[in-house]
Amino acid sequence: MTTDLNRRIVLAAHPHGLPTVQDFRLETGPVPEPGPGQVLLRTLWLSLDPYMRNLMEPVGPGYAEPVPLGGTMVGGTVSRVVASRHPRYAAGDLVLAQAGWQDYALSDGGDLLPLGDVTPPSLALGGLGMPGFTAYVGLQDIGQPRPGETVVVAAATGAVGQVVGQLARLHGARAVGIAGGADKCRIAVEELGFDACLDRHDPQWPQHLAAACPDGIDVYFENVGGAVFDAVLPLLNPGARVPVCGFIAHYNDGAPPPGPDRLPKLTATLLVKRVRMQGFVILDHYGKRYEAFRREMGRWVADGRVRLREARIDGLERAPEAFVDLLRGRHVGKVVVRVAGG
Amino acid sequence: MTTDLNRRIVLAAHPHGLPTVQDFRLETGPVPEPGPGQVLLRTLWLSLDPYMRNLMEPVGPGYAEPVPLGGTMVGGTVSRVVASRHPRYAAGDLVLAQAGWQDYALSDGGDLLPLGDVTPPSLALGGLGMPGFTAYVGLQDIGQPRPGETVVVAAATGAVGQVVGQLARLHGARAVGIAGGADKCRIAVEELGFDACLDRHDPQWPQHLAAACPDGIDVYFENVGGAVFDAVLPLLNPGARVPVCGFIAHYNDGAPPPGPDRLPKLTATLLVKRVRMQGFVILDHYGKRYEAFRREMGRWVADGRVRLREARIDGLERAPEAFVDLLRGRHVGKVVVRVAGG
Repeated sequence: MTTDLNRRIVLAAHPHGLPTVQDFRLETGPVPEPGPGQVLLRTLWLSLDPYMRNLMEPVGPGYAEPVPLGGTMVGGTVSRVVASRHPRYAAGDLVLAQAGWQDYALSDGGDLLPLGDVTPPSLALGGLGMPGFTAYVGLQDIGQPRPGETVVVAAATGAVGQVVGQLARLHGARAVGIAGGADKCRIAVEELGFDACLDRHDPQWPQHLAAACPDGIDVYFENVGGAVFDAVLPLLNPGARVPVCGFIAHYNDGAPPPGPDRLPKLTATLLVKRVRMQGFVILDHYGKRYEAFRREMGRWVADGRVRLREARIDGLERAPEAFVDLLRGRHVGKVVVRVAGG
Repeated sequence: MTTDLNRRIVLAAHPHGLPTVQDFRLETGPVPEPGPGQVLLRTLWLSLDPYMRNLMEPVGPGYAEPVPLGGTMVGGTVSRVVASRHPRYAAGDLVLAQAGWQDYALSDGGDLLPLGDVTPPSLALGGLGMPGFTAYVGLQDIGQPRPGETVVVAAATGAVGQVVGQLARLHGARAVGIAGGADKCRIAVEELGFDACLDRHDPQWPQHLAAACPDGIDVYFENVGGAVFDAVLPLLNPGARVPVCGFIAHYNDGAPPPGPDRLPKLTATLLVKRVRMQGFVILDHYGKRYEAFRREMGRWVADGRVRLREARIDGLERAPEAFVDLLRGRHVGKVVVRVAGG
């Protein structure tokens, strides 16, 4: 599939709370020409991830620049080199790129990674890419699950959560998921190998969580924040670890949410239970450990020891709607948009 | 000084919020007789510490048993052995004990530690005892200040805070204190060697804190919680460490305090700034490291590299009032009650 126009999705407005499709705009322009040292990339797959919500604010989150009004939405992609004036890349190469929400992009090669034999290539945006790496680093560095311990993660069928649960099991720990809906919970247990998964749409789910964690919680992988945290807190064991990689439940908050103030309860729990709660930003870790991760995770996926579930959306023009659905928890699995052929 | 009666201060009522002297009652009874293997202890100094507030609740904090209604208030003491039927202790020995808020107590020796040559002995309840050990372990294990970094601690002239600041300086870090009142701040800087100390009664203190930490905050030693945390949070540097040893600002809370809910802001800060926040309970660490601490800290105090300030109260009967004042921040230095001679 080729096209002589570049479609791109730009930020039309800063969202108030949950974004709507009106916060985005599709623009069309010429396909850019690569200059000396540049490659022209054709986007095949675009990754949609919760962190993108943070980049839609006027002020960025600190670890990345915000998208300016009228600017192309940022995003990881699997792209094919269609023209190259760069010594290390040739037309036809498949690369992991940061081409954003558009058909074509230029790159000087600095942000590219040869894709190797990842099959299907879209996995390089999910379990074999940033979300998988997030699960891997958070568990290795902070969570450190030991055999027989209990690891809890929310958004259990999401891009990060599904890997957290399966890596926990590879460490010999029990994996208990939390997800929105009975279908997701069934998939978490039957397809992804969680020991249990609680449906947070069920008003009794905190009790079910307690029942599913009879020996308490040793690792809570925090990727959602919000109501889930309240149910988890009282179950934390002495010496529990809480890696913090996200807080999707609050990405759409404008002002601080109403009370009661839960900070004192948290502080008391950290103290009394000797809990270690630690944030990490995955961008810090690529240089040192990404290759080891790709080798190791690639083997687990090839062996079938880790199964990766994707939610595939067809068409760049549907990315805004798919992104809003992602923030509303309407997908199952890692969300990727098929922009071209594949 | 001797007496043939034992005065003890018991818990008369579970407090609602800040305790009052009416929550305590002075009772008088016979001096107990040591049985086989026991020693009779005379209390010389009684330690008053914020954690005791937690033991006044019907349900304990998890790391220690609550004091039952009518039970003698718990507390660390410097005591003299006045009669011994224990092979390792003789009348006249000075020991660190857990005799509680009373003139006399029995012990089977299991909770005693020979005092050695600590001078004055009351320091064994402060900088050379539990509060000093708390500062030492929290900084060594979690805070890990490096030369040139900035360490912030509240209750800067308190039992723990004064040691945190001075140990931070021994690590080559800057020490910035927060305290309630201009007098305390002057003492923190002039006597205890803090680089700066902000008076939290000054409405502008958060701005002054920012000015006193031009390179941000690398270690925040959390021993108070509450409003202080709000001012500290935005100043935390990437990779900051937050040891949590207490939350005195909320010991008197019944229900969770009103909103806004500060948990999402905290979680976001932990993530974006890659902060490690970790609770610890000092009881876990005595076995392995207390002797090394006593040697090291003893040397620093003897050298004058660490100065320890005490607030001395005369008379067991004044312990309840002194304790309430402690929770209200009305003392300067480690609070000890002189129960007998000394």
